[in-house]
Amino acid sequence: MAGFNVRSVLVTGANRGIGLELVKQFLEKPNPPEWVFATCRDPEGERAQQLKNLVSRHPNLVIVALEATDPASIKAAATRVEEHLKGSGLNLLINNAAVLKLNTLESETPEDMSLVYTTNVTGPMLVSQAFLPLLKKAAQGSNQKGLSCSKAAIVNMSSEAGSIQNVLIWHVGQAISYRCSKAALNMLTKCQSLGYEGDGILSIAVHPGWVQTDMGISLSPEVRAPVTVDASVRGILNVLPTLSEKDNGAFVSWEGKVLPW
Amino acid sequence: MAGFNVRSVLVTGANRGIGLELVKQFLEKPNPPEWVFATCRDPEGERAQQLKNLVSRHPNLVIVALEATDPASIKAAATRVEEHLKGSGLNLLINNAAVLKLNTLESETPEDMSLVYTTNVTGPMLVSQAFLPLLKKAAQGSNQKGLSCSKAAIVNMSSEAGSIQNVLIWHVGQAISYRCSKAALNMLTKCQSLGYEGDGILSIAVHPGWVQTDMGISLSPEVRAPVTVDASVRGILNVLPTLSEKDNGAFVSWEGKVLPW
Ligand SMILES: NC(=O)c1ccc[n+]([C@@H]2O[C@H](COP(=O)([O-])OP(=O)(O)OC[C@H]3O[C@@H](n4cnc5c(N)ncnc54)[C@H](OP(=O)(O)O)[C@@H]3O)[C@@H](O)[C@H]2O)c1
Ligand SMILES: NC(=O)c1ccc[n+]([C@@H]2O[C@H](COP(=O)([O-])OP(=O)(O)OC[C@H]3O[C@@H](n4cnc5c(N)ncnc54)[C@H](OP(=O)(O)O)[C@@H]3O)[C@@H](O)[C@H]2O)c1
Repeated sequence: MAGFNVRSVLVTGANRGIGLELVKQFLEKPNPPEWVFATCRDPEGERAQQLKNLVSRHPNLVIVALEATDPASIKAAATRVEEHLKGSGLNLLINNAAVLKLNTLESETPEDMSLVYTTNVTGPMLVSQAFLPLLKKAAQGSNQKGLSCSKAAIVNMSSEAGSIQNVLIWHVGQAISYRCSKAALNMLTKCQSLGYEGDGILSIAVHPGWVQTDMGISLSPEVRAPVTVDASVRGILNVLPTLSEKDNGAFVSWEGKVLPW
Repeated sequence: MAGFNVRSVLVTGANRGIGLELVKQFLEKPNPPEWVFATCRDPEGERAQQLKNLVSRHPNLVIVALEATDPASIKAAATRVEEHLKGSGLNLLINNAAVLKLNTLESETPEDMSLVYTTNVTGPMLVSQAFLPLLKKAAQGSNQKGLSCSKAAIVNMSSEAGSIQNVLIWHVGQAISYRCSKAALNMLTKCQSLGYEGDGILSIAVHPGWVQTDMGISLSPEVRAPVTVDASVRGILNVLPTLSEKDNGAFVSWEGKVLPW
């Protein structure tokens, strides 16, 4: 991670779970970013308490309101971040916020199909649209050749549960709406990789492992999620600096393995 | 196609395009099905005229109202079909209805993301749920071993535009919402193949080619869709009888090629 110099990073869904740990580990780097933007739905509320505790020790941490299902909230967040960046760009956008509903083929509902898709796919799409000018600015302002996460990148937090080939842990939970949303997010990532390559922006889908967060634990009361939040995020932050133009549009795990669609 | 004896088939979005042609070619078989259920949004309206013309010559054709974005309409359709089948099951369900919106990464909207997903993914999911009892009945009433389209099957009309690997004709049209929906539909198909295999039901995703229908033509004013509706449907009806349990959950083209996710 030594060579991983990200000047600015934004993480959605950063008030708990993998998002919060990403923020923590970015802040604790020997060479931390100049700006870490941690977004959550309600920065004033109790659910943001852990982020607020971090702010006192880290003046480079900025908490920004962002509700992934609300286009106006996403635009307002981009405006706030732009103000903070004072003319420089955003290097790394991590679309991490997501929801999981534990429905089966039998019990899946149109309401959950909509909510999960709007949060997990339309959300990342709109966030990427809103922050695109800042990502482009980072790419233009960089003297690095090719593509990289320290130059300008969109990292979409996907899941091997959304690998149509592997259908990870089907027998632990069918979670139809969730699996469909992550397969669609992988497609969005691929489209972004084709559309934004010319702008100097890398697009990557990442599987963080089956992780001991609220979401990871909710999937099964019996089988425990095998990966700690610390190990997952350490893995991801080891993998991101290794990615370049040859990986554009790929689906990689926290351990650096390329996963099949 | 000689050995393709389907007693009953239902096609959604059957008033035009590939859906209408599927209905026509089923009716014109030397051994036509006992029942062909052709669903469309408005059986009384002008858009159903071609179907209504067919009914006079084909007493085995039944036109049923089905709006893919309306759960109540889907349930009502299943009830009507059940009445017609008088205790026997439905062999073949073809989820064909879909919409395409020609947005780019830049112009894609939350409204179109929702509409396209609701129609192209949630629709097929709800239709499959509603007709599952009739598909199970067909499987139970069959003396065929294994899985097949003439015993009991769900065929989801997908698209190679939804192959994350191939991203067919990206440069002709980005169609983000559509590509994401078809990748998600492929995941739904895979989930259905895992969930319904034990019930004796085959689940398949089919790419019909780039076809000269309203949808296929709308994609590009300059480059003409290469496949005629007749050839596409003839191809599909040649491929379906060849599919068995070894193909369960696969993604196949109208020419019988297996496509990557
Ligand atoms: N945990 C796993 O095993 C696992 C496995 C594979 C992939 N993933 C993926 O990794 C990412 C993080 O998951 P996690 O395990 O950390 O989940 P988590 O513990 O459930 O946390 C989810 C985060 O997303 C936020 N969020 C949900 N809906 C939102 C919305 N509409 N707007 C803004 N924020 C929203 C939540 O905020 P609130 O506190 O306001 O709800 C929370 O901060 C997700 O993309 C998930 O799909 C996780
Ligand atoms: N044409 C191609 O090149 C191509 C390529 C790959 C895949 N496909 C797939 O093949 C299938 C058929 O496509 P096509 O080319 O025949 O399309 P099309 O000519 O545009 O016809 C679409 C059909 O779907 C129906 N439909 C749309 N929304 C509906 C809803 N909410 N409820 C019920 N019915 C609805 C339409 O009914 P209305 O008349 O009421 O609108 C129409 O019957 C689709 O799944 C499409 O994605 C097509």
